[in-house]
Amino acid sequence: MKRNKQKAYMYGKHSLEEALESAPHAIKKVFLSLDANEKALRDKLAKYAIPVNMLKSGREADRMVGADTAHQGVIAVIDTDTLMVDFKDFTKALSPSADTCLVLLDELTDPHNVGAIIRSAAAFGASGVLIPVHNQAPITGAVVKSSAGMVFRIPLISIGNVNYAIDKLKDLGFWTYALAMDGQKITQEEDFSKPSLFVIGNEGRGIRQKTLERCDTTLRIPMHPRCESLNASVSTAIVLYQWSVQHKNSLR
Amino acid sequence: MKRNKQKAYMYGKHSLEEALESAPHAIKKVFLSLDANEKALRDKLAKYAIPVNMLKSGREADRMVGADTAHQGVIAVIDTDTLMVDFKDFTKALSPSADTCLVLLDELTDPHNVGAIIRSAAAFGASGVLIPVHNQAPITGAVVKSSAGMVFRIPLISIGNVNYAIDKLKDLGFWTYALAMDGQKITQEEDFSKPSLFVIGNEGRGIRQKTLERCDTTLRIPMHPRCESLNASVSTAIVLYQWSVQHKNSLR
Repeated sequence: MKRNKQKAYMYGKHSLEEALESAPHAIKKVFLSLDANEKALRDKLAKYAIPVNMLKSGREADRMVGADTAHQGVIAVIDTDTLMVDFKDFTKALSPSADTCLVLLDELTDPHNVGAIIRSAAAFGASGVLIPVHNQAPITGAVVKSSAGMVFRIPLISIGNVNYAIDKLKDLGFWTYALAMDGQKITQEEDFSKPSLFVIGNEGRGIRQKTLERCDTTLRIPMHPRCESLNASVSTAIVLYQWSVQHKNSLR
Repeated sequence: MKRNKQKAYMYGKHSLEEALESAPHAIKKVFLSLDANEKALRDKLAKYAIPVNMLKSGREADRMVGADTAHQGVIAVIDTDTLMVDFKDFTKALSPSADTCLVLLDELTDPHNVGAIIRSAAAFGASGVLIPVHNQAPITGAVVKSSAGMVFRIPLISIGNVNYAIDKLKDLGFWTYALAMDGQKITQEEDFSKPSLFVIGNEGRGIRQKTLERCDTTLRIPMHPRCESLNASVSTAIVLYQWSVQHKNSLR
């Protein structure tokens, strides 16, 4: 989805099918090329009373989602707000156990990383991904693509303030882990015995100081010295994987 | 680098600095914008007698590497062949131990995945990445970027035939693991006691049947049922991480 005020464009056939299955209410309108105008798809869209417009030209599609995206003649207008859960509502309904974990994005800017992290969070049984409203890549078409449709299957929780959210979750019994290159504890040696909150820093500057100070433990992933760092989405996936190894119940 | 016969374009200041540090011989020519024409950089380029051309316009740069790439006014022409090691030469010099692992890409098509896998292989102490000559994303500018410059720091081994390479490495004592969604063994339960070869399948079709038959063990990563699959680069990173946990010597 490319954001244009409240309107966001999602593209690709698979993404649309995923959305239809998991979050049809989020789809406001669909644009189809002649090629993509299949009966099975039209029937599904009719079922949820989603308006369909025909794409007059490839150029029209390019204008909406960019010439370099593989839209396959399928573009959906999504109300991304309907995908987001309010933090207060989320925490009210939450009863965390040792098998609960959450991921918090501290102002990530690369939509591919955001999407990939959402995908890994869904894969390893996280209960949700907390996404700041400000200074953070929003849920765009590139995020949906990179998430392989998982944005529709795992709660995405909107937070106004990162530090407030951390304090609140600590009150609810969460142990807070910061992923950091120079973390004090080694990921595979950690015993994730409490509900866990994993804080992921911005690709460039890492986690902000005030946020870092709130975290109970900093975690690192041992690496070969020839390599300075891991990609944010890769290190998140590894930590979540390591957590899931200890929490098989969360994969059910 | 965008490939044009033997010529490939690499872009971005950090990528160039990484190349200058680790593989200056691979840099054939550098194009700089007025903004990027700093003395320290010019001195380094002069040291290796690398010719420098001035970029006349942003348009000229766009034409070389594409309008959508963040080239920062720095473009280098790279001879990617000089980054590749011949399989025969590589195996001749190799004396595999239990702490040796290699990664083999079975015709991956996404340059971001190829780059990310090279980065993880470097991070977790792999001894090299085997890359087929045919039907496989070559080492392009996008690959260099995604690898965070690790293409210059870990051996990239050119292979003509995937199955031949596997047979040869098995002769050398390697145990061959295929990463597969329906793998028989669970990654975290595997004892990586021999030199290990990890075979990564194409993003769409996975590993080809004839290749799969050659592998000694298929490995899977347990996931939540709501998620169908993991990204190829993420699952590779996790398996390499798990391997590195058992082989701390490889991180030295």
